[in-house]
Amino acid sequence: MLVYGRNVAKEMLNSEKFIKKVILQENFSDKNIISLIEKKKIDVEYMNKRDLGAFAKFNHQGIILDVEDFKYSKLDDFACEDDSLIVILDHLEDPHNLGAIIRTCEAAGVNGIIIPKNRGVGVNSTVIKTSTGAINNIPVAQVTNLCRTITDLKNRGYWIVGTDMIGDDDYRDIDYSGKIAIVIGNEGKGMSDLVRKSCDFVVKIPMFGKVNSLNASVSAGILIYEAIRNKR
Amino acid sequence: MLVYGRNVAKEMLNSEKFIKKVILQENFSDKNIISLIEKKKIDVEYMNKRDLGAFAKFNHQGIILDVEDFKYSKLDDFACEDDSLIVILDHLEDPHNLGAIIRTCEAAGVNGIIIPKNRGVGVNSTVIKTSTGAINNIPVAQVTNLCRTITDLKNRGYWIVGTDMIGDDDYRDIDYSGKIAIVIGNEGKGMSDLVRKSCDFVVKIPMFGKVNSLNASVSAGILIYEAIRNKR
Repeated sequence: MLVYGRNVAKEMLNSEKFIKKVILQENFSDKNIISLIEKKKIDVEYMNKRDLGAFAKFNHQGIILDVEDFKYSKLDDFACEDDSLIVILDHLEDPHNLGAIIRTCEAAGVNGIIIPKNRGVGVNSTVIKTSTGAINNIPVAQVTNLCRTITDLKNRGYWIVGTDMIGDDDYRDIDYSGKIAIVIGNEGKGMSDLVRKSCDFVVKIPMFGKVNSLNASVSAGILIYEAIRNKR
Repeated sequence: MLVYGRNVAKEMLNSEKFIKKVILQENFSDKNIISLIEKKKIDVEYMNKRDLGAFAKFNHQGIILDVEDFKYSKLDDFACEDDSLIVILDHLEDPHNLGAIIRTCEAAGVNGIIIPKNRGVGVNSTVIKTSTGAINNIPVAQVTNLCRTITDLKNRGYWIVGTDMIGDDDYRDIDYSGKIAIVIGNEGKGMSDLVRKSCDFVVKIPMFGKVNSLNASVSAGILIYEAIRNKR
């Protein structure tokens, strides 16, 4: 998998990830990064600006890394601890949202993230770049059937907190102690009906405007930090 | 100014905004939008998919509107009410962040937004699209000098709450009652030194991970909803 950009490169070079190759723009001059590459003895290929631009359409900042594919975790790796917090993403579509939510989860100390295998964005280059390296420090599990996973989590003692524009409770009125899994819905459609039905609570963030819509990563941030406030 | 996408088009067609022209893809079939266009008797130009794609590189969903330029508000329009909340953006760069923050401010009932005139993103097509129409319901003022504006706000009785990775106080420990202005810093550099010095408080969001960075629109969301919780 190709990842790109200087911040991501630094994170990757400082991690244990296997890096197959580095592609640098001819005039690349970040000494810190170059010394990391040399220390790890990674193969380097140089390209001129034009070729690199044609090769990589995204904003690469002069550096592209060819790294091992992202390794998803298993539910068992993180869905066990008492008083833990898990975030379930119900078919998000925008990789920027997924990246921003991974960043929030890492900063908030969330134990793990669950995403569905089909339909919906997985961990790709854009997600890795947007997560600014946070992806290396938090387990992400990819599951075949979200509803079945939710049942599994319930059997493990988790309370499932869904989120919705028309939720029953204010997000500040719920008790987040114990094992909690927060579900964030799709950007346009929200949670699917089946997922909504399997939630123990469905909460809403109060809104006072006319348009009244929050970006998915913003509502995730507000909810995750509310749970954290309640837990610690 | 050109704006694009179906949601934005609906918002614009339902607002009082002057729309100079609508450009539709030949097979455009959203009856709701077409009837709004007909009702307002707006000139329509049709283009085939290929020409429209060449004309507009962004994700236009078959519709582009040529609308009057965004009209910035004046500080006096909103910086007066008791117990009001203002958001100051210290040189944000990413239009998606600005759009998402405008959305959050509208939903949270923030009284107005202040952005700087030079360096930093203004209200452009991407911002309008990301704000999903919220931009039409909240005043945005563009000012020449942020520090001078902060002094002005102080003279009007506002408390200035800056935000930082290394802020002095936990964001949950501040009293947000009265007139409050929250400052959100640049995505990479945070608040500028001069702006930081002119804040009455500088708060931080506690983080528990290794990478520990939040997307600017996510931290804005967490802070704005904390102030709202405190105010209402």
